[in-house]
Amino acid sequence: MWSGDDAAVVRAPGSSPGQQPLLLLAADTVVAGIDADLSLTTLSDFGWKAMAVNLSDIAAMGGRPAHALVSVVGLGPDELEDLYEGIMEAAAEFGCDVVGGDLSAGSEVVVSVAVTGWVDGEPVLRSGAQPGDRIWVTAPLGAAAAGLRLLRQAGPGPHDWGAPDQALVSAHARPRPAVAEGVVARLVGATAMIDVSDGLAADLDQLATRSSVGFELSSVPVAEGAEIEEALAGGDDYVLVLTTPRPVEVVKAFVAAGVPAPYLIGECVADRRLRSVAGKTLRVAGWEHSL
Amino acid sequence: MWSGDDAAVVRAPGSSPGQQPLLLLAADTVVAGIDADLSLTTLSDFGWKAMAVNLSDIAAMGGRPAHALVSVVGLGPDELEDLYEGIMEAAAEFGCDVVGGDLSAGSEVVVSVAVTGWVDGEPVLRSGAQPGDRIWVTAPLGAAAAGLRLLRQAGPGPHDWGAPDQALVSAHARPRPAVAEGVVARLVGATAMIDVSDGLAADLDQLATRSSVGFELSSVPVAEGAEIEEALAGGDDYVLVLTTPRPVEVVKAFVAAGVPAPYLIGECVADRRLRSVAGKTLRVAGWEHSL
Repeated sequence: MWSGDDAAVVRAPGSSPGQQPLLLLAADTVVAGIDADLSLTTLSDFGWKAMAVNLSDIAAMGGRPAHALVSVVGLGPDELEDLYEGIMEAAAEFGCDVVGGDLSAGSEVVVSVAVTGWVDGEPVLRSGAQPGDRIWVTAPLGAAAAGLRLLRQAGPGPHDWGAPDQALVSAHARPRPAVAEGVVARLVGATAMIDVSDGLAADLDQLATRSSVGFELSSVPVAEGAEIEEALAGGDDYVLVLTTPRPVEVVKAFVAAGVPAPYLIGECVADRRLRSVAGKTLRVAGWEHSL
Repeated sequence: MWSGDDAAVVRAPGSSPGQQPLLLLAADTVVAGIDADLSLTTLSDFGWKAMAVNLSDIAAMGGRPAHALVSVVGLGPDELEDLYEGIMEAAAEFGCDVVGGDLSAGSEVVVSVAVTGWVDGEPVLRSGAQPGDRIWVTAPLGAAAAGLRLLRQAGPGPHDWGAPDQALVSAHARPRPAVAEGVVARLVGATAMIDVSDGLAADLDQLATRSSVGFELSSVPVAEGAEIEEALAGGDDYVLVLTTPRPVEVVKAFVAAGVPAPYLIGECVADRRLRSVAGKTLRVAGWEHSL
């Protein structure tokens, strides 16, 4: 059955609860021309992204990535090599072993990845947030959307990007799943977690709906060079949003683990319909929002 | 790393060998117009096939299917419902739980499935056949290719098929992975196993190459209504080919398990280059063969 979470949680047959790690399973597909504009980013970037979106699903459960299966449609041998460069770079970077997959002919470039992960103890679901829990994000938002905007403005071809534009372009071309952050969040007792793939507004709305809480955001950290709209509604950041009842411990735990401290952005509230940013209603349906 | 087998074999972290079941992972993609002609078979059949080709990979390792992730590209809501009808029918029939997946827009219909399975004890690889081992298939061959031939001859539209044509058409439209047979084959000590997806000649060639043996086939069982060429080179039968040193026990074990007795088709030989059928050389490169 569909779990409604980023990844499905599975126990090995015959095993007792707590006896061994739980298995996480997730699959995500990227389609050229829809999930990436290959006139603006490379096939290698596309391979990286196919892996990153999947690894982010494991991160959002607080798991460690283990294995990937990669199915590719519509690429010839040379193109496949370019794609696999990015796939293997992401796999190596985040400790995921590519163990199999499939190659098919087709008129459209489609990369389907399935990943497994392991989690010692209980995975973090979307549904566990309680009123009063603080809400955090693991990094400033909007970088990927801003990077795509810069790439579109510049058009095809190589460009020399200065800082901070290079960071924005990289955030779009090679998003980094927050794997280490997700593990720390789980260990410090995060009550709910989700990754930002559709935009903070949409994904936090998902988390709140699944947890039967509302939320009031006090501030949203915007990536340098990004706009507030990109931070709220821009997708593909793969930052994690998490909730926890213990604000001080959270920052300590992140710093102790050597990952950047998360940003406190607000609080869960009992009114499950409430979606507000700095006292103003946030409309999330269909990517809309108002400030 | 790629295993070169039908599925990758994975052990849970921290577990000792033999302590718990091994995890099998496999992924296969089907593309409309390439893996199925949707003017001849239905979307529901296409969904069934997407599952069946994956379940067959688990079967070929001697495992039991556990979970599936299904990623779909290029279908609208109504079409998706038709596709999922076949997916869920196959999932129910072979005890596999669909736990997640992904839905993407796209101009081409692509269904990527990833499956897990569990195996108690050692999975059966392609590489374990020894000279002198007998070679078996779990059912007569060529039915799927013959069914496709009948469908092409008849053209689009519903048809009333009499027996044995209906069985051939079903073998093409709704291939049945040999899950129960694979488990019995493992339990009775099969040394190597592979499923027939590309045709007996090509797949047995794979098994022999990976095992560093040759083979001499004495006879090949041909499905009723199929032609010998279809039995040797027709793909998509998803019958299992297995090798074992103990011919009598094999038949007994299959019958005791309530699955049809396998067909003895030949023997592995020490000359690793030998590929022969009834004393004549079998050429397998590029689907060619001669009798």
